[in-house]
Amino acid sequence: MKIQPVIMSGGSGTRLWPMSRQNRPKQFLKLVTDKSMFQETVLRVSPEVDPNFEPPVVIAGAKHGPVITEEFRELDMVPGDIILEPCARNTAAVAAVASAWVARHDDDALILLMPADHHIPDGEGFRAAIAKAVKAAEDGYIAIFGIKPTRPHTGYGYIQTGEALSDSVYKAAAFREKPDRKTAEAYLADGRHYWNAGIFLFRASAMLEELKNHAPEIKSAAIAALDKSVMSGAAIRLDEDAFSPCPSNSLDYAVMEKTAKAAIVAPVDVGWTDIGSWSEVETQPQGRNVVVLGGAGNIIRTEGPLVAAAGVSDLIIIAVDDAVLVAPRDNAQAVREIVEELKKRGREDLL
Amino acid sequence: MKIQPVIMSGGSGTRLWPMSRQNRPKQFLKLVTDKSMFQETVLRVSPEVDPNFEPPVVIAGAKHGPVITEEFRELDMVPGDIILEPCARNTAAVAAVASAWVARHDDDALILLMPADHHIPDGEGFRAAIAKAVKAAEDGYIAIFGIKPTRPHTGYGYIQTGEALSDSVYKAAAFREKPDRKTAEAYLADGRHYWNAGIFLFRASAMLEELKNHAPEIKSAAIAALDKSVMSGAAIRLDEDAFSPCPSNSLDYAVMEKTAKAAIVAPVDVGWTDIGSWSEVETQPQGRNVVVLGGAGNIIRTEGPLVAAAGVSDLIIIAVDDAVLVAPRDNAQAVREIVEELKKRGREDLL
Repeated sequence: MKIQPVIMSGGSGTRLWPMSRQNRPKQFLKLVTDKSMFQETVLRVSPEVDPNFEPPVVIAGAKHGPVITEEFRELDMVPGDIILEPCARNTAAVAAVASAWVARHDDDALILLMPADHHIPDGEGFRAAIAKAVKAAEDGYIAIFGIKPTRPHTGYGYIQTGEALSDSVYKAAAFREKPDRKTAEAYLADGRHYWNAGIFLFRASAMLEELKNHAPEIKSAAIAALDKSVMSGAAIRLDEDAFSPCPSNSLDYAVMEKTAKAAIVAPVDVGWTDIGSWSEVETQPQGRNVVVLGGAGNIIRTEGPLVAAAGVSDLIIIAVDDAVLVAPRDNAQAVREIVEELKKRGREDLL
Repeated sequence: MKIQPVIMSGGSGTRLWPMSRQNRPKQFLKLVTDKSMFQETVLRVSPEVDPNFEPPVVIAGAKHGPVITEEFRELDMVPGDIILEPCARNTAAVAAVASAWVARHDDDALILLMPADHHIPDGEGFRAAIAKAVKAAEDGYIAIFGIKPTRPHTGYGYIQTGEALSDSVYKAAAFREKPDRKTAEAYLADGRHYWNAGIFLFRASAMLEELKNHAPEIKSAAIAALDKSVMSGAAIRLDEDAFSPCPSNSLDYAVMEKTAKAAIVAPVDVGWTDIGSWSEVETQPQGRNVVVLGGAGNIIRTEGPLVAAAGVSDLIIIAVDDAVLVAPRDNAQAVREIVEELKKRGREDLL
């Protein structure tokens, strides 16, 4: 059974400022390995590692067309279709576009929908988890992947397992976004809650059916935007007039929490991380451009200038050519506030 | 009576790293005003503000010849002689070179010897203090200037006043470099101790006499280096073979603490500061390239990149194109350690 990967590359790129920018959201940063997270995502599901995968379809913001072309060029790979959104309308719209597009050729095709900005070190384990989900997806379920939680993270979404469908596959009983600390600790303890990796496997026809039932406006806007889309270079541009009225909602809220067809593969233990803030990035080791004397627990990254930190602890220090961020390590909110302040000051050149 | 200003521009430029560099010590930085401290020093004693001053002689490290020419060009001023040292031999050697050079034309000329890297906001008050010292200098004293201390600074030198010579001029009774905190507090309380500004007024002949008495090797090395000096462009280059054996000592240690001819003008209250570390630099206000949210007491300077500091306090954050320093505000030593580390790593490009 062939699987069509669809990569969602819609990040806005503020949480890892100053490295991430509007024109270079975090999926295009080489933060963890010598490849960007976008490239790692492509390679994880490439036809070369598993011939069941088709070349990936990418759905991205219109301004990222050129960088995506460049990302594939660096990999010496040919992408599947690249679909550009004139505006961001969240993941339910992306699922609708992906399903409607793939269904044009094959209504029953299996789609693997996944974000471009997650870090998954164990690619083999990831593909094994997908294999476990195939049967449920073929049976009309929308399968999601439940990551075994390792700490009571309050920034992730959690899914509770329900009735068993097959080995490691359950009906999804409940969704919970960003729980408070106490709830997250209880989830961690009960062994029935998993992190929602935001990755989905489903038949195009099944997703279209559930969208029709639970989010019909999203489905119709996506289909209209595709119907009026135009080719622009190597990419397909969705029609702006048709797409912009589309309600902006996450696939979890719009469909998964409502449908009876939600399934979860769990536990998935592949080292998955959604790097949502500098606090979750490993520090760059001392080296040519990092000098640390004394202190401890700093997260230091530089794209060029030497960073010298002496006697300071638990700071985030990020340096790029045109900007430097210094904030406490435990204050991820600080980055957002800085970005807001820069917007107020009209510093679009730094965003 | 004409006065010959001699500007000592021999700083090595490590204490204000990363802004100060070997090729651009702190006197050439525009840290306090829109002019460098070198330029402010030149303007403070220019013939334009007081026709008693001759155009200044500059004694500087050999590699700083070009930047000094540029500093005068920016001011649209013509310097007096520029004398370049092949190696640094501290202030006693500079005083010897200055005196021997000026004495070639006029043995009795008054020399005002001063560092290029001090900040003195009250130029008029400074010139008034010099006027008070003229009589003592004409009488053969080496007059120094005692700054009224405003806090128990442990990094400065202190001078104790002795027998009165005239209004606000005393014999210097004792010198004390970098006292401990308790001693500095006692000095501040007793009203008889003043900060040593490192500025001297004397007759060329008087200095040569005292050097002969207390530091004859320094005097002879300076004279030999001048005798064998060569013109190089617009500058006079001291002979390296003659100058390099010169003992390296401060004028305070070599002469002032030993001579009976030390006089002090005090109190001098002109806002004098020797900016010896980032801790003493005023923070750059928020503006185009500084964004501070929350926190307090940070010293932030940038020469280009935007610096965004959120929720951090009492830090020094200095950003230039190729380097960023982050250190606690109360740890001036940190900068020295960073510079040492960079030397160890062979990063001459950053020094």
